[in-house]
Amino acid sequence: MTTHVAPAPFTADDYRARATRVLADAAEQGLDGVLVTPGPDLVWLTGYRPTAITERLTVLVLARDHEPTLLVPALERPDAEAAEGVRGLALQAWADATDPYAAAAALLRADGTYGVSDSAWALHLLGLQERLPRSRYRALTDCLPMMRAVKGPDELARIAAAGAAADATYDQIVGHRFAGRRETEVAADLAALLREAGHEQVDFTVVGSGPNGANPHHEAGDRVIARGDAVVLDFGGLMHGYGSDTTRTVCVGEPSDELRRVHEVVRLAQQAGVDAARPGAACQDVDRAARAVITDAGYGEAFIHRTGHGIGVTTHEPPYMVEGEEQPLVPGMCFSVEPGVYLAGRFGVRIEDIVTVTADGVERLNRTSRELRVVE
Amino acid sequence: MTTHVAPAPFTADDYRARATRVLADAAEQGLDGVLVTPGPDLVWLTGYRPTAITERLTVLVLARDHEPTLLVPALERPDAEAAEGVRGLALQAWADATDPYAAAAALLRADGTYGVSDSAWALHLLGLQERLPRSRYRALTDCLPMMRAVKGPDELARIAAAGAAADATYDQIVGHRFAGRRETEVAADLAALLREAGHEQVDFTVVGSGPNGANPHHEAGDRVIARGDAVVLDFGGLMHGYGSDTTRTVCVGEPSDELRRVHEVVRLAQQAGVDAARPGAACQDVDRAARAVITDAGYGEAFIHRTGHGIGVTTHEPPYMVEGEEQPLVPGMCFSVEPGVYLAGRFGVRIEDIVTVTADGVERLNRTSRELRVVE
Repeated sequence: MTTHVAPAPFTADDYRARATRVLADAAEQGLDGVLVTPGPDLVWLTGYRPTAITERLTVLVLARDHEPTLLVPALERPDAEAAEGVRGLALQAWADATDPYAAAAALLRADGTYGVSDSAWALHLLGLQERLPRSRYRALTDCLPMMRAVKGPDELARIAAAGAAADATYDQIVGHRFAGRRETEVAADLAALLREAGHEQVDFTVVGSGPNGANPHHEAGDRVIARGDAVVLDFGGLMHGYGSDTTRTVCVGEPSDELRRVHEVVRLAQQAGVDAARPGAACQDVDRAARAVITDAGYGEAFIHRTGHGIGVTTHEPPYMVEGEEQPLVPGMCFSVEPGVYLAGRFGVRIEDIVTVTADGVERLNRTSRELRVVE
Repeated sequence: MTTHVAPAPFTADDYRARATRVLADAAEQGLDGVLVTPGPDLVWLTGYRPTAITERLTVLVLARDHEPTLLVPALERPDAEAAEGVRGLALQAWADATDPYAAAAALLRADGTYGVSDSAWALHLLGLQERLPRSRYRALTDCLPMMRAVKGPDELARIAAAGAAADATYDQIVGHRFAGRRETEVAADLAALLREAGHEQVDFTVVGSGPNGANPHHEAGDRVIARGDAVVLDFGGLMHGYGSDTTRTVCVGEPSDELRRVHEVVRLAQQAGVDAARPGAACQDVDRAARAVITDAGYGEAFIHRTGHGIGVTTHEPPYMVEGEEQPLVPGMCFSVEPGVYLAGRFGVRIEDIVTVTADGVERLNRTSRELRVVE
């Protein structure tokens, strides 16, 4: 299917540049530094992904008065050392039966204020709070929400490649049989197609047929797809470490007038959201633009989620296109625009593309047709 | 391979009994209640496992002055309602663009002290701390470390079945070819065998050959296994929702005298750990007994991890067999005994069984031979 050259791996210099930028942003927010625990922030800053995220503390300390230091459990040291972005960091290991919070506290100011990874374990945060009672912490989403949001050219190329692979998957799946097959079978087809198209990880393959499509968090179940069903297809994962996420709603055989009408409302809402996105517009403007179309058509109560989310080394991250989010859009940001209408017990429709903010608007990174497609 | 009848699913009554016990234990610890976020604690208390653990707050509040309440994002409500253990709980949903911490705070005392799941996100804990500045929190590992540690008969039956399936996997894998194959190929064999034996989830398939065996957190790599290699095989996962975890070290062809000697030290250390485990003994006594054998043989510096960990709905959980852990063993606890010796750049040896505490000692739930096995 899609053929392309794999991108060059990120270098230690690439990672160092990210850490430098984070430290500058942190200082601007009045932080003494940031504490990064395993997960997407750590992958982005070092390329290091521990085998498992456990009760054993692993933390990258980026602080203005210390050299960047990665603290790891002693028995994970060899794995950590093998990560490209860990070269050029100080590496400290703590042994079982010693106190990791004492080791971490030695890298911090007793009265410092630190950003901390959203998904850091409460166990670890409480350990630091107990060890340094005058220290303060803020979730990175609150203090540096846009830390990973503006993508560099090397990152954009990866997200575009992942989007093209997701498009190739959609182009293939609409040729598969739907009627008479279980949702889980179509979902397995989607997963296989994503992998064929180059994804190393499949994160979700939603197949929501008929009433199941009206639950936006339905994945795929045993329901046998029938003629006349609307089917929500929402799929994505990681390719070269960066995410894809696209949704199309298809109809098995001839659509009803109501499905046509709802689908067209959602299509226009999606277009309105995309049209509202440009540098300087607020995230909530994208949500408002999409939502207005749906509300005006009388389906406002049936659009029960936000309009979009960022994408990068994860498939769901800031910025969020949601009422109340005043963050201005900046060139290089990548996010989904995915309004939907959910009619409980009957059917759902959602249409989703990833877009990236350009100098004067956005570019779609998913490009398959958004018209209602009839499948067999 | 292993054939057995699948256990009856846990009922709403089973889950309710667990919640009642947790509330009683919490009161005894001076807590006003516990806050349980997605992950093993929530699975154990409700059977509910959200599709993904995200920035959207999901929390079960068990508090002495409130009916048990599960707070979920609105769009995950249908999934939550489908979980057996959620019946009989109050269910509250919060919508995007509303404040989930206000909703959670309404269920808490302003000056209350709550246990919180170890793996709760820092984002969520900080949100609660900001909303209720006089509230206090303790990690469940610190205040109720043994919350899930003592298994009921239905849980024990599942762990025993998972152990038997892991044993069947070992019995098969020693008949496979090792010499000339990559570690990853043997690891794939292990995964397939675990699934054939009934596991629904494979969590790890460590194949550490030669020098890779000296890194206790090595998984499996491209290294081609050679004659003369010691190979550490450490594998496990979940079966009927409960964990397996066993390790054997095999030799490809005739072992060296040194490998024989080290293996025998580890075998005796493992036996000493098992012999030390009985009701009333402290967790650290198991570690000390195993460690003494290795230290006396001159390899103390080469045993660089704790002796064991609990197992249940996860493959790593309290109780931990580690110096400093004074928790007494109680009948029904299940944990690993897995000493090892790691000779950097050369080879490693580890032997691991899951055991369960009985009225007067422990019973091994892995029963394959612990003698050094020669493979081809």
